[in-house]
Amino acid sequence: MKTIIKNGIVVTSGSIFKADILIEGESITSISSHITQESADKIINAEGQYVFPGGIDVHTHLEWPLMDTETADDFVSGTKAAAVGGITSIINFTKPEIGASLIPTQEEWIEKGKKSVIDYGLHAIINHYSDRVLEELPILAETYGVGSIKLFMAYKGEMMVNDLEMYKIMKKAGELGIITNVHAENGDIIDEMIAQALAEGKTDPIYHGYTRPTIMEAEATGRALAIAEAANAPIYIVHVSCAEALEKVVEAKKRGVQAFAETCPQYLVLDISYLDQPNFEGGKYVCSPPLREKWNQDALWNGLQTGIISVAGSDHCPFRYEGQKTMGKDDFSKIPNGLPGLEDIFSILYHFGVHKGRISLNKFVEIISTNPAKLFGLTKKGDISIGKDADIVVFDPNRSRVITAECQYQNVDYNAYEGMKVQGVITNVLSRGEVIVKDGQFIGDLARGKYLHRSRVQNQ
Amino acid sequence: MKTIIKNGIVVTSGSIFKADILIEGESITSISSHITQESADKIINAEGQYVFPGGIDVHTHLEWPLMDTETADDFVSGTKAAAVGGITSIINFTKPEIGASLIPTQEEWIEKGKKSVIDYGLHAIINHYSDRVLEELPILAETYGVGSIKLFMAYKGEMMVNDLEMYKIMKKAGELGIITNVHAENGDIIDEMIAQALAEGKTDPIYHGYTRPTIMEAEATGRALAIAEAANAPIYIVHVSCAEALEKVVEAKKRGVQAFAETCPQYLVLDISYLDQPNFEGGKYVCSPPLREKWNQDALWNGLQTGIISVAGSDHCPFRYEGQKTMGKDDFSKIPNGLPGLEDIFSILYHFGVHKGRISLNKFVEIISTNPAKLFGLTKKGDISIGKDADIVVFDPNRSRVITAECQYQNVDYNAYEGMKVQGVITNVLSRGEVIVKDGQFIGDLARGKYLHRSRVQNQ
Amino acid sequence: MKTIIKNGIVVTSGSIFKADILIEGESITSISSHITQESADKIINAEGQYVFPGGIDVHTHLEWPLMDTETADDFVSGTKAAAVGGITSIINFTKPEIGASLIPTQEEWIEKGKKSVIDYGLHAIINHYSDRVLEELPILAETYGVGSIKLFMAYKGEMMVNDLEMYKIMKKAGELGIITNVHAENGDIIDEMIAQALAEGKTDPIYHGYTRPTIMEAEATGRALAIAEAANAPIYIVHVSCAEALEKVVEAKKRGVQAFAETCPQYLVLDISYLDQPNFEGGKYVCSPPLREKWNQDALWNGLQTGIISVAGSDHCPFRYEGQKTMGKDDFSKIPNGLPGLEDIFSILYHFGVHKGRISLNKFVEIISTNPAKLFGLTKKGDISIGKDADIVVFDPNRSRVITAECQYQNVDYNAYEGMKVQGVITNVLSRGEVIVKDGQFIGDLARGKYLHRSRVQNQ
Amino acid sequence: MKTIIKNGIVVTSGSIFKADILIEGESITSISSHITQESADKIINAEGQYVFPGGIDVHTHLEWPLMDTETADDFVSGTKAAAVGGITSIINFTKPEIGASLIPTQEEWIEKGKKSVIDYGLHAIINHYSDRVLEELPILAETYGVGSIKLFMAYKGEMMVNDLEMYKIMKKAGELGIITNVHAENGDIIDEMIAQALAEGKTDPIYHGYTRPTIMEAEATGRALAIAEAANAPIYIVHVSCAEALEKVVEAKKRGVQAFAETCPQYLVLDISYLDQPNFEGGKYVCSPPLREKWNQDALWNGLQTGIISVAGSDHCPFRYEGQKTMGKDDFSKIPNGLPGLEDIFSILYHFGVHKGRISLNKFVEIISTNPAKLFGLTKKGDISIGKDADIVVFDPNRSRVITAECQYQNVDYNAYEGMKVQGVITNVLSRGEVIVKDGQFIGDLARGKYLHRSRVQNQ
Ligand SMILES: [Zn+2]
Ligand SMILES: [Zn+2]
Ligand SMILES: [Zn+2]
Ligand SMILES: [Zn+2]
Ligand SMILES: [Zn+2]
Ligand SMILES: [Zn+2]
Ligand SMILES: [Zn+2]
Ligand SMILES: [Zn+2]
Repeated sequence: MKTIIKNGIVVTSGSIFKADILIEGESITSISSHITQESADKIINAEGQYVFPGGIDVHTHLEWPLMDTETADDFVSGTKAAAVGGITSIINFTKPEIGASLIPTQEEWIEKGKKSVIDYGLHAIINHYSDRVLEELPILAETYGVGSIKLFMAYKGEMMVNDLEMYKIMKKAGELGIITNVHAENGDIIDEMIAQALAEGKTDPIYHGYTRPTIMEAEATGRALAIAEAANAPIYIVHVSCAEALEKVVEAKKRGVQAFAETCPQYLVLDISYLDQPNFEGGKYVCSPPLREKWNQDALWNGLQTGIISVAGSDHCPFRYEGQKTMGKDDFSKIPNGLPGLEDIFSILYHFGVHKGRISLNKFVEIISTNPAKLFGLTKKGDISIGKDADIVVFDPNRSRVITAECQYQNVDYNAYEGMKVQGVITNVLSRGEVIVKDGQFIGDLARGKYLHRSRVQNQ
Repeated sequence: MKTIIKNGIVVTSGSIFKADILIEGESITSISSHITQESADKIINAEGQYVFPGGIDVHTHLEWPLMDTETADDFVSGTKAAAVGGITSIINFTKPEIGASLIPTQEEWIEKGKKSVIDYGLHAIINHYSDRVLEELPILAETYGVGSIKLFMAYKGEMMVNDLEMYKIMKKAGELGIITNVHAENGDIIDEMIAQALAEGKTDPIYHGYTRPTIMEAEATGRALAIAEAANAPIYIVHVSCAEALEKVVEAKKRGVQAFAETCPQYLVLDISYLDQPNFEGGKYVCSPPLREKWNQDALWNGLQTGIISVAGSDHCPFRYEGQKTMGKDDFSKIPNGLPGLEDIFSILYHFGVHKGRISLNKFVEIISTNPAKLFGLTKKGDISIGKDADIVVFDPNRSRVITAECQYQNVDYNAYEGMKVQGVITNVLSRGEVIVKDGQFIGDLARGKYLHRSRVQNQ
Repeated sequence: MKTIIKNGIVVTSGSIFKADILIEGESITSISSHITQESADKIINAEGQYVFPGGIDVHTHLEWPLMDTETADDFVSGTKAAAVGGITSIINFTKPEIGASLIPTQEEWIEKGKKSVIDYGLHAIINHYSDRVLEELPILAETYGVGSIKLFMAYKGEMMVNDLEMYKIMKKAGELGIITNVHAENGDIIDEMIAQALAEGKTDPIYHGYTRPTIMEAEATGRALAIAEAANAPIYIVHVSCAEALEKVVEAKKRGVQAFAETCPQYLVLDISYLDQPNFEGGKYVCSPPLREKWNQDALWNGLQTGIISVAGSDHCPFRYEGQKTMGKDDFSKIPNGLPGLEDIFSILYHFGVHKGRISLNKFVEIISTNPAKLFGLTKKGDISIGKDADIVVFDPNRSRVITAECQYQNVDYNAYEGMKVQGVITNVLSRGEVIVKDGQFIGDLARGKYLHRSRVQNQ
Repeated sequence: MKTIIKNGIVVTSGSIFKADILIEGESITSISSHITQESADKIINAEGQYVFPGGIDVHTHLEWPLMDTETADDFVSGTKAAAVGGITSIINFTKPEIGASLIPTQEEWIEKGKKSVIDYGLHAIINHYSDRVLEELPILAETYGVGSIKLFMAYKGEMMVNDLEMYKIMKKAGELGIITNVHAENGDIIDEMIAQALAEGKTDPIYHGYTRPTIMEAEATGRALAIAEAANAPIYIVHVSCAEALEKVVEAKKRGVQAFAETCPQYLVLDISYLDQPNFEGGKYVCSPPLREKWNQDALWNGLQTGIISVAGSDHCPFRYEGQKTMGKDDFSKIPNGLPGLEDIFSILYHFGVHKGRISLNKFVEIISTNPAKLFGLTKKGDISIGKDADIVVFDPNRSRVITAECQYQNVDYNAYEGMKVQGVITNVLSRGEVIVKDGQFIGDLARGKYLHRSRVQNQ
């Protein structure tokens, strides 16, 4: 099978140029000023459109058990939504039982993921420390291609590890070239603040915001970075939500720590006022860290533009409003934490970033595709170049669309960006050479996604 | 003319991949997994070698009058040295008479540059303020493709402008999308310190270092960034030499200033002890800002790795030891300021950066080629992609060489990196499709370089 | 003449204690748990009242020519207002003709000051550089007891000096133990911003605020501190108005610079919205630096509490609304810059500081009396201890009063704090042992103030 | 009993003045320019000498069990040493059994302290969390006058509390106006580093230094300050040893946290090279945090001078070399942590601070006496003023002495400052009016010290 994408404006992190792209089988085999159409099985006319490498969302929670329920998207609906939204690879989090061996968990999640319609990798969550964990890390890395793990500094009793566990695991990870994702909030103190608020009858969603203050995110972020420094290990702070935490990343980078940061569309575009709405509307916007005061958005955009923040991930952790979010109607602490975002991250970032003039086209590609690929060892992804998987998004910047839950593939009954008009429409999405999305509709096969065996982190 | 570079490992800022490259005329027209050799006029076998986009040195002073003498390299010897060293484009500084119109100066320097063997652009130095300057800026930008100017905060009476002049010029530049290079040292106070030192009989080269302290570089850097902020203009701090000045760049980036920084190989590899040598040996190492305490090197490498510093430029400002540097044998202030570096910047950065593990291959390309092209509007340079000029360096990472003045093309009688063994040897250099360097020898035509008409700065 | 202050609660920077105070002649000769009243000529019953050392306002502009007019208070009305407000010493600025010798200026201002009802010192403003200036500095310090000078980085053509002049003067000052007051705003750029605003028809007082942005204060502050560092001289930044400038002070202190900062009541209590009022009401609030965004107030209070800011000075620079402020009715740049504050600084600081819980009683004394005395060489002032001049304020914290122009001694037709109710009433003010204020009325003799011959700065 | 100190130069934090001091009973009742000697029982001629308020050392560990041994000084030898060294009040740490009720512990330690020859207070160490702890805090504060507690972030299993415990305790403490001392090192990770070092056969004292890196002090310091901020409680970081930790204090102060810091003479004067000596000589210098790289000393002195550090405490935790320190001859982790310092802190601070020109005389008094009194509620101490306890040090600045273990009162067989010649000799020490030290000899009664019932922290 040969496909040619003709006449598009190819955008990579390094440049912007007009070219034809030849795809043979699953890979890009030629990029040329002119490719003759004769031998092609399929021609995509991209005249006047951008041709981007497919988005890579390294922060998703599909089929993810949390708080006695599970996220609303499984690998089917979730990866369809991803594809339609321009994301051609995800790295999802596993969720082991507490104290469970990492290997069977990994096997189990590889299995779950086989339903995916796009390629999927897995970060191994580690929720406890034992000698076995350290023994399993090299197996994960070598046998399963898992060069990234995740540790939580919050959610005690469920996923949280303490400082010593974090240090010992990171030390081993550092030796193996494994990068550690960290959810950085001081869980112990936040739990206490929540208990206090509830004891005082403060049950509305806005108290979710008040009981997870920025200082407790900044504290944990600084601590994680210090531990990474002591352990001589690379670290990736997920979902940085505020200027105060970001400042800790800057400081660590200045000290020479191999520290990287991610932010998410919700922190770039939404703010704490969304939590403070009548009729439990705020419940839809409960995620952790919580939405912050609006002025933080500038700091985050600036972080992306200057390279202090390397990646935008969706933290897609979707729950339906009816039946799931409403579990916490009378107690904000019972609202499952998380927002849907996988379907919209690409558009949100393009619209509020590129279209609004905050970041360049190259930077957009870097954030949504090239950097995630580099940091998480996806050597066949993240760029439009020879030998790379033909994961490609064709994007018409001259059209626009309105985001709405009604039309989404995400299996949820609301959309956090409902009603926003965004510039640009995705016309084609290719995954390993196959057109799987056409004009907003998923047209690919089911279960066509492949598990991503990844290499270790490289010095960015 | 068709040339194919076969089997090389192509390295861009975004990825690393094996591919063949087809060059037709001056441009890259195809990058493919396999290009048939039939129709090619020339084949370069790059098996086992890196194929880099040609280096871009945006900071050179060829044929540059300074302190009653002129730099030792003209556009002939200088660009030959560049080519041999892997640099396929330079942006040289003009040098107008004080108060002179910018346009004839520009014309004159375009003329001078025609002797170049590689492509050359020009930054317009502005050494005074007048209404005419503001009127000439759009002409420079549009007619001459000069999207960058340079202002000096030192060298009073020769090039220095004051704060108000800087503000008014930058304000206009900002409106026009012109980026301002700034030499940031507090010239007034430094001149006084020099006078004091000389009055106390301190005439050795080391006093060059002592009379230009880091605080005076940091002060001027902070001031320039504040003025850029007030003027709402993009700014590029040339030759950041120390942690204290770099910190000002970090602060400005955090405030959202469109601020970029450059450092130079001499600040990454050499230190102030080089100035403190017997028999006027220190005279060879006199440049401004001066070499700094060694610990600053880590901060600068870290700045490159984290993206706080965007570019490495050579600040190639060569003077012969005999007859030029020695003009200051009895008075350090009479030593012409500057080091040769154009021939070695590529190698130094590769060796001490990539080979020593401080930066990745991608980051190396970003610093030496992609970022300079983006920041200074070289839309046909800085990447290996379709339609780009075929400016390419083929580099064998498995061989090594020793830097020595004896073998250099630079027209100077010493080399600042004399005797250093560096990993990697440049085997071929192509400029717009022509092989101009083969195995260390320049084999191209003279005067083949073209003047670079540049576009304006884009948001990086 | 013997006076006893009985039963008061003495408050110094170091402690709070009940004691009687015996004053013999001009000095405090005994502080005791009980002083017998027999031999006393006068008894002041301070039962239930605080007994503070008299306030010292080191930043006043009495009889000060500015912008073709002169401040509304001369040494008579100004020092009466001071006394009534709890200030028993001032240090006023001189105002030499441009290029004039400092010595006759000093003589002239000593003469002017003789009308004062409280003691007065003089800071020597230096508005130009010449060899004579350096020669006069030791004479000023030794013969005239002037251990402090002032340099302006703004008001070009009137008072501004450039960096080199500042450096040379500060270097000499540093050698002599003279501290340099600096008005830190980048005058060159501000003048240009003003010209631009006016050219665009922006003439209202609010544009006074917009054309002197915080970045231009912060820039100049950082520059002054860097120059002080290079010159190895002590420096005192007057009227720090915003967080951004204050941050420069913190940085300099961390580098070990002998740097001190002052703020003023208007920056602690008022904000930029005062400039933005209809009917030229904003004209009343024009001072430089301008009033700032309200959130800066917290940073300034915090600076006082933590000791980063050492002193509160009034920057008393009063102009009548009618006839003076209104000179700029159609052009904000013609509004004479300055606010009255000498009469209220003590009360404002007590009320919004101590009474509101932002600073302790000891800290209040430190800021308003002890630190100014230490920094400016007033060895007989600033404390209630043996041998000190009996400059004392007896203050009833249980009463309150309303600030209003109607009742003020200041020779202006408005009060910047009009209508504010403040806790505490000054019942007695003693100056060198004489009761000069009783229940809000000045009852002392005219021209009783003495010129303060000061010693040099000591390491605080 | 009436004592007069005649003709001395009284030094307080606020001023320096010549005066006579009358002491009646235990208190200062009069400070006067001249006190007639008639009625006096005792005259101390202080002509030419400084008269300081007695030193207050708020960080001592007398009779303190640690690592299966106990500090070498009990309340007898320790307080004698203190007195001879110019310290007239101490606040010692209690040491409860793990989980023990605070009240009997307090009673027990009040009892122990009765042997003291100077006044003593007690900080309550809290080594666990329970509801009872929170209930006991108000009792401690009210009944026992204990307005300060101490929490450890290191020494797991012995004293360490976790973040949640710290938060809950500090929250209650904050409500009660109790200030929390914090030993800030990340104990968990340090313990692991120690285990690693030992496993690798690294047993020498220098590894004590290497296994407690500055980043782990800085991390814990930042965390403690964040928790204090969240808990809205005042906090006092004990023994700040390095620039990196100090920076966290600066940041917290800027955020408005009620944060205070202490450093100790060993961090100001000694450095990590002392640990790296042959023949287990380094064992003498094992304390926690460990001695640091020498360049940190400047940052700490600067912290004292600028007021960022409020207090110098000795952290007197003495162990004999023979038999105690040598317990760790083959394993640095078995060396009891701590240095003797109570006898020398006053002299070390005067000599290296005042005499060397780093701090002023006033600042010396502030650090060693006034600030500790203010922060820890010693309302009758910390100043020479009416009604204060007559705790006074008469100090001859013109003489000098050599510190040596041979002559010390401390019950240890070495002195950390052995052989240092220090300027100034203490000639008299008075405690509540009694001369207890005369010319270097303790001449007071035993068990004359009183327990200090303290008030709560005031806003400094
Ligand atoms: Zn998370
Ligand atoms: Zn997540
Ligand atoms: Zn330069
Ligand atoms: Zn240059
Ligand atoms: Zn001013
Ligand atoms: Zn003023
Ligand atoms: Zn401790
Ligand atoms: Zn201790």
